[in-house]
Amino acid sequence: MTQQAPHRYLGKARKLVDGVEKVTGRARYAGDVSLPGMLHGKLALSLFAHARITRIDTAAALKIPGVVAVLTADDLPTRNRQPSSRQTTTLAREVVRYRGEPVALVLATSLAAAEDGVAALQIDYEPLPAPVTAEAALDPAAPVIWPQGAPKADTDLTAAHAAVARGEEQSDHVASNIHEQKRFSRGDALAALATAEVVVAGTYRTAIVHQGYLEPHAVVADIEPIRKHITLYTSTQGQFGVRDEVARLLGLRTSQVTVVPMTVGGGFGAKYGILDPLAAAAALAVGRPVRIVLDRSEDFLTTTPSPASTITIKLGATREGVLTAIVAEMVIDNGVYPFTLGGIMSTLLGGYYRCPNVQIDVVEVLTHKPQAGAYRAPGAPQVTFALESSIDELARRLELDPLELRLRNAATTGDPMGNNDPWPSMGLRQVLEAAANHPLWRERTPGSGVGLAIGGWPCGMSPAAAVCRVDTDGIVRVHVGSVDISGVNSSFVLVAAEILGVPPEQVEIVAGDTRSGPFAGPSGGSQITYSVAGAVAAAAQEARRQLLEVAADMLEARIDDLDLRDGAIHVRGLPGRTLPIGEVARRAQEQQGGPGPIVGEGRTAPAENAPGFVAHIVQVTVDNETGRVQPLRYVAIQDVGFPLNPLMVEGQIHGGAVQGIGWGLHEALRYDENGELLTASLMDYTLPRAADVPSIETVLVTNPAPNGPFGARGVGEPPITAGAAALANAIRDATGARIYELPMRDEVVWRAMQKGVNKQ
Amino acid sequence: MTQQAPHRYLGKARKLVDGVEKVTGRARYAGDVSLPGMLHGKLALSLFAHARITRIDTAAALKIPGVVAVLTADDLPTRNRQPSSRQTTTLAREVVRYRGEPVALVLATSLAAAEDGVAALQIDYEPLPAPVTAEAALDPAAPVIWPQGAPKADTDLTAAHAAVARGEEQSDHVASNIHEQKRFSRGDALAALATAEVVVAGTYRTAIVHQGYLEPHAVVADIEPIRKHITLYTSTQGQFGVRDEVARLLGLRTSQVTVVPMTVGGGFGAKYGILDPLAAAAALAVGRPVRIVLDRSEDFLTTTPSPASTITIKLGATREGVLTAIVAEMVIDNGVYPFTLGGIMSTLLGGYYRCPNVQIDVVEVLTHKPQAGAYRAPGAPQVTFALESSIDELARRLELDPLELRLRNAATTGDPMGNNDPWPSMGLRQVLEAAANHPLWRERTPGSGVGLAIGGWPCGMSPAAAVCRVDTDGIVRVHVGSVDISGVNSSFVLVAAEILGVPPEQVEIVAGDTRSGPFAGPSGGSQITYSVAGAVAAAAQEARRQLLEVAADMLEARIDDLDLRDGAIHVRGLPGRTLPIGEVARRAQEQQGGPGPIVGEGRTAPAENAPGFVAHIVQVTVDNETGRVQPLRYVAIQDVGFPLNPLMVEGQIHGGAVQGIGWGLHEALRYDENGELLTASLMDYTLPRAADVPSIETVLVTNPAPNGPFGARGVGEPPITAGAAALANAIRDATGARIYELPMRDEVVWRAMQKGVNKQ
Repeated sequence: MTQQAPHRYLGKARKLVDGVEKVTGRARYAGDVSLPGMLHGKLALSLFAHARITRIDTAAALKIPGVVAVLTADDLPTRNRQPSSRQTTTLAREVVRYRGEPVALVLATSLAAAEDGVAALQIDYEPLPAPVTAEAALDPAAPVIWPQGAPKADTDLTAAHAAVARGEEQSDHVASNIHEQKRFSRGDALAALATAEVVVAGTYRTAIVHQGYLEPHAVVADIEPIRKHITLYTSTQGQFGVRDEVARLLGLRTSQVTVVPMTVGGGFGAKYGILDPLAAAAALAVGRPVRIVLDRSEDFLTTTPSPASTITIKLGATREGVLTAIVAEMVIDNGVYPFTLGGIMSTLLGGYYRCPNVQIDVVEVLTHKPQAGAYRAPGAPQVTFALESSIDELARRLELDPLELRLRNAATTGDPMGNNDPWPSMGLRQVLEAAANHPLWRERTPGSGVGLAIGGWPCGMSPAAAVCRVDTDGIVRVHVGSVDISGVNSSFVLVAAEILGVPPEQVEIVAGDTRSGPFAGPSGGSQITYSVAGAVAAAAQEARRQLLEVAADMLEARIDDLDLRDGAIHVRGLPGRTLPIGEVARRAQEQQGGPGPIVGEGRTAPAENAPGFVAHIVQVTVDNETGRVQPLRYVAIQDVGFPLNPLMVEGQIHGGAVQGIGWGLHEALRYDENGELLTASLMDYTLPRAADVPSIETVLVTNPAPNGPFGARGVGEPPITAGAAALANAIRDATGARIYELPMRDEVVWRAMQKGVNKQ
Repeated sequence: MTQQAPHRYLGKARKLVDGVEKVTGRARYAGDVSLPGMLHGKLALSLFAHARITRIDTAAALKIPGVVAVLTADDLPTRNRQPSSRQTTTLAREVVRYRGEPVALVLATSLAAAEDGVAALQIDYEPLPAPVTAEAALDPAAPVIWPQGAPKADTDLTAAHAAVARGEEQSDHVASNIHEQKRFSRGDALAALATAEVVVAGTYRTAIVHQGYLEPHAVVADIEPIRKHITLYTSTQGQFGVRDEVARLLGLRTSQVTVVPMTVGGGFGAKYGILDPLAAAAALAVGRPVRIVLDRSEDFLTTTPSPASTITIKLGATREGVLTAIVAEMVIDNGVYPFTLGGIMSTLLGGYYRCPNVQIDVVEVLTHKPQAGAYRAPGAPQVTFALESSIDELARRLELDPLELRLRNAATTGDPMGNNDPWPSMGLRQVLEAAANHPLWRERTPGSGVGLAIGGWPCGMSPAAAVCRVDTDGIVRVHVGSVDISGVNSSFVLVAAEILGVPPEQVEIVAGDTRSGPFAGPSGGSQITYSVAGAVAAAAQEARRQLLEVAADMLEARIDDLDLRDGAIHVRGLPGRTLPIGEVARRAQEQQGGPGPIVGEGRTAPAENAPGFVAHIVQVTVDNETGRVQPLRYVAIQDVGFPLNPLMVEGQIHGGAVQGIGWGLHEALRYDENGELLTASLMDYTLPRAADVPSIETVLVTNPAPNGPFGARGVGEPPITAGAAALANAIRDATGARIYELPMRDEVVWRAMQKGVNKQ
C-alpha cells in the first residue's frame, strides 16, 4: 500500500548503514570503551525494600588486592543534591527504599576484584515496613514512603514523548503515597453513562514490564581533574539531556560535561541516564576513569521498567453503536519515585474515539519498588489493552462487527484527544479501512481466533539542526546530534541522497557528541525522523545550492539549467557537460576568492506533531487443555505518513509487534511481598522467543503528515500499542473468554476459560 | 605601536586556551593514544647511504617473544605505488638511498620487544657509490641517483605556502642529479651589472637545519578490517592532506581514511604526514592497530630537514644607492627526493627590493641524504641571509646607513616580486620606519655590534569553513578543521567573543577530524589565522543573526534595538530588558514552530594573500679569542596587520626569532663523506638554549591587510626570516668580518676574523 512517490532513493528499501559493524561485532558499545587507568565499578545493592543503613564496613573490601576505593553516598559530589525523580541512580543515603537500590560502589583495577570487594562489604540494615504494591501503598494505614514529600519530577514525560498538554491537577498533595491525582474530562460522563443504552465495564490489570534491551546499562566516565571536565561514553538515547542532568547533580557547568553517545544495544525508553551521574560522580571522587556495566540481574533490579496499572473502564453507547460515555479510573504503580504517565494515558484513552462525555481519574502511586520509567509508547499498551478489550466487548454486546464499531466512532483530525486538545492530522480511519480490506479480517469466521485492536501515539517533536558537508571525493557528510536507536541514520542518508542526487553509498552520517553537536532532541517519542530529517533536508538543500553556484561557474551554465544526479552535476540538454560533485567541492575548497568550502546548515522546529495510528490483526490458537496461546498470523497496519526507508519502518513495526506480543503473552517482573524481585534473570523473565512469534506482515498506510519531512510520521511507538489488546480479542474470539490481565500466560487464560464466557 | 581598535576583546592579550592542558601534561599527543590489541612498531634503518638490499632474514627476530610480524616493502599495500616525493616514508624496496631510510618494520606487543626484534634482524647490503653532497652530485661523473627519473613531486610547496606563481622551467630533464633548473628574470641583469657603478658579490652557504620540534613524529593507525577503514591519530599540521596521501598510497577511497589530528608538539613545516602511510599500511597488513613513535635519533635520521643551499649573489647599484641589478645562482641540496624551494626563494630574492634587472638561476640537486622538507618560511632564511648580508655590504661600500639604503630600495605594494607578480598590500617600508625610530638602531655607534636585516613572506591562504553553535548554558562552540600549532584557537575565541558579545571564556573551539570537519587548509604558510578567522567570523555573525531573531521575539523588541554584550542580549535604552544568550538558545532549541537551534556556518576564500614583513635588529658581542657570538639585545619589528590576540602574535615572533638565532649561530645537520649523520642527537645537534637567547622585544606594526579578518596578516613565517642575516650584519659591525656561512659558530667567526675585514 506504499504510495509510489516520484523519488529516486526515498521510499525504497535500503539496508542499515551500520549493519556491517553490528553483525561483525565492530560497533563500539559503551562497555567496549577502555581508558588508561580506568577502574571497574561494581555496585552493592540493597537487600531490603525498605531499611535504615546502620553500618557500612569497608575494611575487608579495601584489603582485597586491586580494590582502590569503596564509595558511599557521602563520598560523592552528588551528596547534597536530590536526583531528579526520573531515571537517575546515585547511592542510597541512610535509607534504602527498594530491593536493588545501590548502596555502595566498589572501584577496582579489575572487574573480578570489584566483585570480590562487593562480596566483602559488611552492610548492616535495620528493616522498615515496606508497602510494595499499589494496593498496599494506598491503604490509609500504610507508612508514607516520602513523609517530607517525594522528590519532584523536573521533567514531564508526557510533554517529552508526545507533544501534548497536561491535565488538570486534582488537589494539593498531603503526605501520602499518592504523588499525583488528576482528572481529565469533557461533557458529563457519569450522566451519559447512567443513561446509556448499552454499558460494558471491566477492570484491566497490566504487569510491570521491562524494556528488555540486549545491552544492559553501561557507561565509562573519564575525568580531566584540573578543569573538572567529565566525558561520558554511554549507552543513551539522548546525550544532551544526560549532560544537563549530570552537570546539575554534580554541581558542574554543563560545559564541563561531554556526553559521547555510543552504539546502543536497545533503549526503548530506559536509556536517558540512569547510571551516568553515578559514574561521573565516582570518577570525580577518585580522579580516575570509571566503568560501570550492569549485569543482567543488576539491570532488572535497579533500572526503570514500565509501571503496573489497574484500569477500570466503563463504556456507554447507543444501540446503533455510537459511543456516548467513557468513564475510567487508573491506578499507576510508579515505584519509589514519582513518574507521570497519567497524562498521556488519559490523552489516549479519551482520544482514540470521538466521544462527547469522558471522565478519567488518574491516581499515581509510590511503592517500595524500583522507579517506573518510560518504555516505548509509555502507558499506551496498558490503556490500549483496557480500551480496546472493552470496545471489543461492546461490539459483541451490540452484535456489531468490531471493526465497523470502531469506524463509526474513530477519531479523526480535529477531534478532541483525552486532554481535549484537537488531534493534528491523523489517519485512524485510513488504517481501519486498510484493516477492513485485509483478507485475515475480511475472511475470518466467528470463533476462528482472529482479534483486532487499534492503537496510536501522538508522536513527539523537537527542534533540531544538521550540517551537511561535501568532500572532494564526492562523499556527503551529514552531521546530526541524534542517537540512532532505530535505523534513523539509514533514512537520513536517503534524504540527503535524494536532495543532492548522489547514490546513498556516498552519504555518511556523522553523529555528534554534546560538544560537536549539532543539537537534536532525545531518541524517544517517535520524534527523530519527524524532527531531524527536516533539518537534514534543509542542510542538504543549502549544500546543493552552494554546489550549483560553483558548478554554474565551472560549467559556464545558468544554475537553472543544472541538474544533480548520480553524484554529478549535469547541464540539462548537453550530455557531455557534467562534473562529479567531488570536483565541484574541490574547486570550492581551493578557489581563492570563491565562495568557500561546501557546508550547509539546516534547522527545523515542527509546529505540530504527527500522530501515528495502527490496526493490528492477530490470529491465535488456544490450547484447551493448557490455555497456551499460539499466535499464527499477525498483520500490522500503520499510518507512517511516508516511509523514508521502508525497510527501517518495517523493522520498527516488526520490533514493536514482537514487544506487543511480549506484553500480551509473556513478560512480567514479579515481586514477593517483601519487594524481592522473583524474576531477575532471563530464565525467569521470559521475553518472547523466535518460536513464540509468527511472521509479521506489515501494511504501510501513507497518509502524509503536513509538517513531516516528505510527509513522514513518527513510527517507533505506535506498533507496540495494540498487540496485547489484539491478542486478548483474538483469545476472546477463539475461546469466548475475556482476559482482564496481562500477561495472558497459560494459567491466566486457562482460568478464564474455566470461568466461562466474559466473566470477570 | 599596536593601534587601539574599538574592540572589546580583539587586539587584547589573552592566554592560550589550552595552556592548562599543556602545562599539566593532560593534552593528548599522538603517542599517548593506546588502543586494544595495538602493536608497537620499530623501524630498521638503512646503515648505508646507497646500497642494494641482498637479504632480509627475519627468522631470529620472529622468535623473540612479543614480536608479531616483520614487514618489508613487499608486505605493504603500498608496494606498487610510488610515494609522493614529498615527506612520505614507506619501506625501501631492493635499494636504500640514504642512511636512515626505513627498511623493515618490526611489530610487537611491546616497544621493548620491537626493539629487540630490530636488533635481531639480519639485513645484508651491497654498498653502492653515493654522492652525498650537492658538489659531488653535480659532478658529471657522479652516478645518477634516479636513472629512470626521480619520483615526481605532486605538490608545489611554493603554491601551498606562499600563494605565488611558479617560475619558468629551464629545460627538459635528462638523467642527472639535477631535478629542476629554473630561471627567474626581468630586465637585463647581466648588462646592468656590467655597467653598475658599484658591485658587491659573495657566495653564501647555509647548512641543513632541522625543524627541532619537541615531539618527534608519532602516529597510531587503527584499522576496521571489514570496510578497510583506517583511522590515524597523528601529529600533523593538516589532516586533510594526510588523508588524501594515505588513501592514494594505499589504494583506498579517501572516505576510508579518517585522520584525527592530535595535539602537536611542534611542526614547523615537517608534519604533513611522513610516517602516516607506513603506519596505515602496516595496520592494514596485520589487521591490528599500530603505533609508531620515533625516538630523537630516528627523527633526525629519517625526517625532512631544511635543504642546504649555496647562493652566489651580485648586486649592482648607483653611487646614490639605487639598486640596478641582482644576479644570483642558487644550488639547493634536496636530498634523495625532489623538493622545490627555488620558486619561493627566487620570489623573495628578487622581490624584497625594487630593482629593474634581476636574473636568478636555480639548480635543485638530488643527493644521497634524507629528503629536504619545509621548515617555517621554507627557503627564506637562506635567501635572506645571502641578500641581506649583501645589502649590508653594499651600504658599507656606499657609506650609506644600511637602513637608509633599504628604505631607498624597499619594495612596496604593487612592485614586482621575483616571479614578477606584483606584491599585494605589504608593509616593508612601515617596518623599516619603525626600525629607524627604535633606540637600538637610532642610538647605535659604529662598531657597537648592531646589525639589521629585513625579511618577509608572502603568506598563504586557503578557503575555509567554520560552524558556530550556541548552547543553552551560553557556551559558544566554534567548529573548525584547522590544526592549532601556533595558538590560532586562542585568537578564534576572541573573534567569536567579539562578534557575539560574550566573554572569551564562554567560547570553545572544537577541532574536527577529516570526518567531522569543516574543511580548512593545513597549518603552514602563515595562512590559518588569515583564512580561518574569516570563516569563524562569518559563522559567528550568522549565529548572532539567529540569536537576535529569537531574542527580538522573546523581548518584544525590534532586532535593530538589540545589543549583544557580556553574554546577554539587551534592549538598548531599557536596562532591565535583557536575556542571557543561553536562554535565547534554549528557546530556539525548544520552541515548536520556531526557527530551530542556533547554528551558523561561515565560509571564506580570500582572493589575495597578505605578505608579512619584518625588520630585526640585534646587538652582539663577539669574543676576540674564541669567535663566540653572544646576542645581547634583539628587537623584532613586524607588520602583523592587526594582532587578533597580541600574546599569540608575540609568541610567534619570539619563537621565530629564537629559531632565527638557531639558524644563525647554532644549528646544522652534518654528514660524513659516506652520508652518515654525525649529529643524530640533541647533544650533537645544538639547538639554542635559554642562555644563548636574549630577551626579545617585539614591535607590532599594524598595516591592515585589506582581505584579512579585522586586517590581520599571517604572522608565523616572517619572524624566522631575518635573524641569521641580522646576526651576520651585527658580527660584521662588531668585528669587521663578513661571515659567508651558516651557522656562524665560534670557529667560523674566529676564522673570518683572522682573514680580516670582508674577505671571502
